[in-house]
Amino acid sequence: MSASTSDARVDHACLTVHGPDQPGLVAAITEWIARHEGNIVSLDQYSSDPEGGDFFERVVFHRAGLSSSLDDLREDLEALLAPYGMEHRLTDQSIPKRMAILASTSDHCLLELLWRHRRGELPVTIPMVISNHTNTAEDVRSFGIPFFHVPSQGPDKSAAEARIVELLAGNVDFVVLARYMQILSDSFLEKVGVPVINIHHSFLPAFIGAAPYRKAWERGVKLIGATSHYVTKDLDEGPIIEQDVARVTHAHTAADLQARGAYVERAVLSRAVQWHAEDRVIRHGNHTIVF
Amino acid sequence: MSASTSDARVDHACLTVHGPDQPGLVAAITEWIARHEGNIVSLDQYSSDPEGGDFFERVVFHRAGLSSSLDDLREDLEALLAPYGMEHRLTDQSIPKRMAILASTSDHCLLELLWRHRRGELPVTIPMVISNHTNTAEDVRSFGIPFFHVPSQGPDKSAAEARIVELLAGNVDFVVLARYMQILSDSFLEKVGVPVINIHHSFLPAFIGAAPYRKAWERGVKLIGATSHYVTKDLDEGPIIEQDVARVTHAHTAADLQARGAYVERAVLSRAVQWHAEDRVIRHGNHTIVF
Amino acid sequence: MSASTSDARVDHACLTVHGPDQPGLVAAITEWIARHEGNIVSLDQYSSDPEGGDFFERVVFHRAGLSSSLDDLREDLEALLAPYGMEHRLTDQSIPKRMAILASTSDHCLLELLWRHRRGELPVTIPMVISNHTNTAEDVRSFGIPFFHVPSQGPDKSAAEARIVELLAGNVDFVVLARYMQILSDSFLEKVGVPVINIHHSFLPAFIGAAPYRKAWERGVKLIGATSHYVTKDLDEGPIIEQDVARVTHAHTAADLQARGAYVERAVLSRAVQWHAEDRVIRHGNHTIVF
Amino acid sequence: MSASTSDARVDHACLTVHGPDQPGLVAAITEWIARHEGNIVSLDQYSSDPEGGDFFERVVFHRAGLSSSLDDLREDLEALLAPYGMEHRLTDQSIPKRMAILASTSDHCLLELLWRHRRGELPVTIPMVISNHTNTAEDVRSFGIPFFHVPSQGPDKSAAEARIVELLAGNVDFVVLARYMQILSDSFLEKVGVPVINIHHSFLPAFIGAAPYRKAWERGVKLIGATSHYVTKDLDEGPIIEQDVARVTHAHTAADLQARGAYVERAVLSRAVQWHAEDRVIRHGNHTIVF
Repeated sequence: MSASTSDARVDHACLTVHGPDQPGLVAAITEWIARHEGNIVSLDQYSSDPEGGDFFERVVFHRAGLSSSLDDLREDLEALLAPYGMEHRLTDQSIPKRMAILASTSDHCLLELLWRHRRGELPVTIPMVISNHTNTAEDVRSFGIPFFHVPSQGPDKSAAEARIVELLAGNVDFVVLARYMQILSDSFLEKVGVPVINIHHSFLPAFIGAAPYRKAWERGVKLIGATSHYVTKDLDEGPIIEQDVARVTHAHTAADLQARGAYVERAVLSRAVQWHAEDRVIRHGNHTIVF
Repeated sequence: MSASTSDARVDHACLTVHGPDQPGLVAAITEWIARHEGNIVSLDQYSSDPEGGDFFERVVFHRAGLSSSLDDLREDLEALLAPYGMEHRLTDQSIPKRMAILASTSDHCLLELLWRHRRGELPVTIPMVISNHTNTAEDVRSFGIPFFHVPSQGPDKSAAEARIVELLAGNVDFVVLARYMQILSDSFLEKVGVPVINIHHSFLPAFIGAAPYRKAWERGVKLIGATSHYVTKDLDEGPIIEQDVARVTHAHTAADLQARGAYVERAVLSRAVQWHAEDRVIRHGNHTIVF
Repeated sequence: MSASTSDARVDHACLTVHGPDQPGLVAAITEWIARHEGNIVSLDQYSSDPEGGDFFERVVFHRAGLSSSLDDLREDLEALLAPYGMEHRLTDQSIPKRMAILASTSDHCLLELLWRHRRGELPVTIPMVISNHTNTAEDVRSFGIPFFHVPSQGPDKSAAEARIVELLAGNVDFVVLARYMQILSDSFLEKVGVPVINIHHSFLPAFIGAAPYRKAWERGVKLIGATSHYVTKDLDEGPIIEQDVARVTHAHTAADLQARGAYVERAVLSRAVQWHAEDRVIRHGNHTIVF
Repeated sequence: MSASTSDARVDHACLTVHGPDQPGLVAAITEWIARHEGNIVSLDQYSSDPEGGDFFERVVFHRAGLSSSLDDLREDLEALLAPYGMEHRLTDQSIPKRMAILASTSDHCLLELLWRHRRGELPVTIPMVISNHTNTAEDVRSFGIPFFHVPSQGPDKSAAEARIVELLAGNVDFVVLARYMQILSDSFLEKVGVPVINIHHSFLPAFIGAAPYRKAWERGVKLIGATSHYVTKDLDEGPIIEQDVARVTHAHTAADLQARGAYVERAVLSRAVQWHAEDRVIRHGNHTIVF
């Protein structure tokens, strides 16, 4: 879960496999890697139950000339794993994922992602930031990232969503909602067709819905939290990737909770984004396996 | 909130005051202490709003000959604070509170409290442990604490509750539910007439009710928690005293969450009990102020 | 220690007092505030020992027309506290402290402070950033803050230090070393004449001196840390204001420790700066009291 | 690092392998497991560098009839791995390790281990507790564990050490120093011949040697810590297994630090012991790999 940032490199492949557990699966996969002259750098494996459970594996391996042979490797891998009924994914770690960010007026999650990217800590490219407000435009562009303003006024969001889909189509591998304060329609999620990661400003499932800091303050909690999850059609119910909390006291107002929560949010979202970008997260029903 | 355990001492008084904030209140109280030849050891004060808010204060002061003059001091204090309409409480820190513990089969919270008490870290006496099971009797008695078995079978709990009330009546200053797995009736709470502190095995308000670890596992959370609160007529809704969390992963089963959660529960309950015993907690509606 | 950011307001004064503990001190101070028609918003007090120990207090109080009467209040306070031999300081919380930042090539601490300032979370003004490198100039100026480049080449740092003193003189109330990678001379500290806060990239006193992350990696620690402290003539030995840690594993290289440590450093330094700016920190020998 | 406690089971083997990294190693091992009809339950692998670095692996696999074929498996494994020059260890997870505990007057680490063992959370048997004091004898025996008193008076510890070696010889697989306040001689370590795990009451390498809480208080730190490590001939310099910290403030005395530190110590030591007992820790020079 907590690996070096240095494994995003030339000639490094990341393979994730999951499906019904069967004897010999790890051996088959590692033997296949060895046969293709790969050398395993790291391997994480988890079985929910050795008898009739589910199997999850993430392997990073070094293999000379990876990029030119990736298609052949994928074809050969399909031949190997299809009989087992396993889902699998083989990625070239030298190719960063393309990440779009959707934001509103708050800048704490947005700027944190842009800054971590500039530091070289997120293995992504950022083709665009889209916001329904303009206040962050100058900051975003100072990082050399294109900024698009797509206003979202009135009850009908379909025009705004259509414009966003148009901008994203074919250009991104995943989307991050960095405190984007619009609820996206089911049809939007279908059209976008790539994973969408959200940050919710509470320790889900506590304080589902709007105004979670206000609700947390009213309940008199002693810790506040944030949750990053994949967006699904069920609001605030998608698979959780990461969560964290911060301590608060009776002396904090609801506004104080919000100000402190911002630091938890940006940290939690950044970790979730990094793990997704590094192919560490496998979705399984409403759960995630994070290697 | 995090004071030395060493302030439970002879000739040390603890005064808590709360009510509508008014100019001059801190001065009136500290002047009163000085007039009675007290020397302030620590003072915590909080106002929810200097204009029309609520005022909360906890002062520990040293005063020679405290125990023999406590009644006079209380009377004089009432004369001082009654005009302000303030609630107040003056305790002699050399007199430990009497704490009863109710438990069921689980021993982790129970033994932790007994052991911390034996170490001299909890300023309480423990006149009795009551359980609806007998498995912990020998352990409890090895600490020199009386153990009473009050079985709680069948749907009608009134006989068991009556027996518990009989044991507690006049003998205790507060009651701790150390994973006591019976829901107490409203009438029980009224008859007991002293504060009752519970430990709930979730990060409230998430996973209210039964089987919270099972629910947490089903939701795929990345942190589990525990919450200690005062018991009120509304189940799991009383004022929260303390909360904490522990990290879990996809590799943990619901049983693993329960095993790890036990360590969070015993720590959270112990802190809540200590703070209550040290008069650090002031209840205010559904909130607590913890100094 | 963890108060709302909202107490930096018009007509709010902050009084800190420390010196030999004496009976009646709190009463004298609070009575003085009441006499001047102040209403106490928060009060923290600590005595190292009620008999012959040291006394520390921080009071925030609201007082109409504060700014126009501040000089009179200070004079009157001196008359009150001089007989007790107490050090004291009365500040108008509506007047932010002037903070200069010294930096080198690393931007993580620098940008965090500038960003928190822009968010309104640090009650300071920032008249200047000084760096011995130019790489952060554009970023700094995009926040509307003046940037001065003072190169520091060769073994003789006296010219550079003289130039920095010249820039700071009369313009700042405290200085923050935001990963400024030059050792300052004793004479510099004397000439600057205001508090200087540093962030050290280790859990002091472990790994004193240069290359702490390398040393931490060599020792095989499981946690790395950062420490913010006041700078004194003894390198890395000044009073500690705040510390924190992050978990690392065998899989992290020394470079990974450095990358992760950056997040601890910026958080620890930000908290220390905020507490100093809010007059929450009282220096006492080689210790700090943080209210 | 953070696995379910439920993998201590019949027919489950744990294999750890480490040595110079070589292509095909993971494949060779997993193929070997598959050939012997094992089904991998979990696999952790780490390479310090795919080119010329060190390789570390821990595999848990299920294999019917494990206990009766363990000798054959070990022999076959040696034949497989000897050519690679790898160190390896194959254990039957249904056979708990035998753990002796050495203690002095403090009971917090000792009782925590005994209690976790009784809860079924530590996969060990405890053939004996040895102490140079008698105060914990009754508590230890109430857990059904033999207690031996070996006094350690005067400057010459050789008689006491000889007596301890005599008690341990052939009876234990590892030794835990649960706040055993005697320095063990090099010759003792040689004669014992099994791993010895210690808990040091500081965040090593800070405050090496005696009275660390006193030193921590004098330095004015804001966090205290504890470190569990393997004992080597160099005092407090052995490979670190686990560390953790707790927050303290100016209000805590050195005695308070010690009282709070006890809770960190027992948690850190318990985790280290559990990980060692589950074969999760691989020593490598002065480092540990913890899977």
